[in-house]
Amino acid sequence: MRRLTLFLAAAAVAAGAIAFRAPEAGHADQEIYVNRIPDGYRDWRLVSVAHEAGPLNDIRAILGNDLAIKAYREGKLPFPDGAIIARIAWAYVPSEENNKVFGRDQSFVAGPPPDWYLQFMVKDSKRYAATGGWGYAQFDKDGKPAPEAKLKTCYPCHEPIKARDFVFTKYTP
Amino acid sequence: MRRLTLFLAAAAVAAGAIAFRAPEAGHADQEIYVNRIPDGYRDWRLVSVAHEAGPLNDIRAILGNDLAIKAYREGKLPFPDGAIIARIAWAYVPSEENNKVFGRDQSFVAGPPPDWYLQFMVKDSKRYAATGGWGYAQFDKDGKPAPEAKLKTCYPCHEPIKARDFVFTKYTP
Repeated sequence: MRRLTLFLAAAAVAAGAIAFRAPEAGHADQEIYVNRIPDGYRDWRLVSVAHEAGPLNDIRAILGNDLAIKAYREGKLPFPDGAIIARIAWAYVPSEENNKVFGRDQSFVAGPPPDWYLQFMVKDSKRYAATGGWGYAQFDKDGKPAPEAKLKTCYPCHEPIKARDFVFTKYTP
Repeated sequence: MRRLTLFLAAAAVAAGAIAFRAPEAGHADQEIYVNRIPDGYRDWRLVSVAHEAGPLNDIRAILGNDLAIKAYREGKLPFPDGAIIARIAWAYVPSEENNKVFGRDQSFVAGPPPDWYLQFMVKDSKRYAATGGWGYAQFDKDGKPAPEAKLKTCYPCHEPIKARDFVFTKYTP
């Protein structure tokens, strides 16, 4: 009886812990997603830039918080807990204004935000142990988080780059 | 005689002023270029990103110092004296690593720095009055400034965008 009581008490503590985490956690069984936009991300420093053609057809910037930038610049892997990498995407649009000056169609700039406007990878090796130590997040321009089904596709795509701690983007000085 | 002496004294003062500025100035007759890389520019905040196809074939990030970012975000023109806008360019290269994951050739990333790696616009409405209040600068990956002949081509290209204080790039949130 005493053993059962202890077990129930422990279970209650565990349940309490889960409840406490609930506002940030979308899921119960290990796969936990980030559903809050990190404060001040738009002021973070630049990691690099990229263009995704094809159906995405966006141009993007990858930013890092201080911990992420420090790790990138020191070339230290894995990233420390607390590191956050942000990816902002904009529609890839031609700039007629620029093309006029260049005298040819060559200039593509950042247009309006697409549905996959913001993405984040948040490092917490314990909390996100089931997904390589990273929590994944995506938000549209109104700050609405992507559904869990969408977020479940993040980690499988990042798995091939495990050797760089699941991060595709390299820092470009 | 007294008048001549005064004139010579004034000329000496003027010459002294020019000599004092010489380390930063490349030119004597109004068109003065910037030939020093601004400290800490790689830590500045992001304005936007772009891709120049054609002969440049680069992907680029535009950053701003605190004064530039503040003016951009507040939508205030002209930019205040002291504002500096940086443009970093990298070769536009396909990422085989990313394409494998996407399952199609769609991903282009920042590669090595081209000869036109760094450019800056430095706002000083008095000092650079002859070129719209902006001083122009360009450096290669080794920090070597572009020749003056090259820098003379900056302002004529920026003139068409006088309505936005000679700055092409718009801030993208």
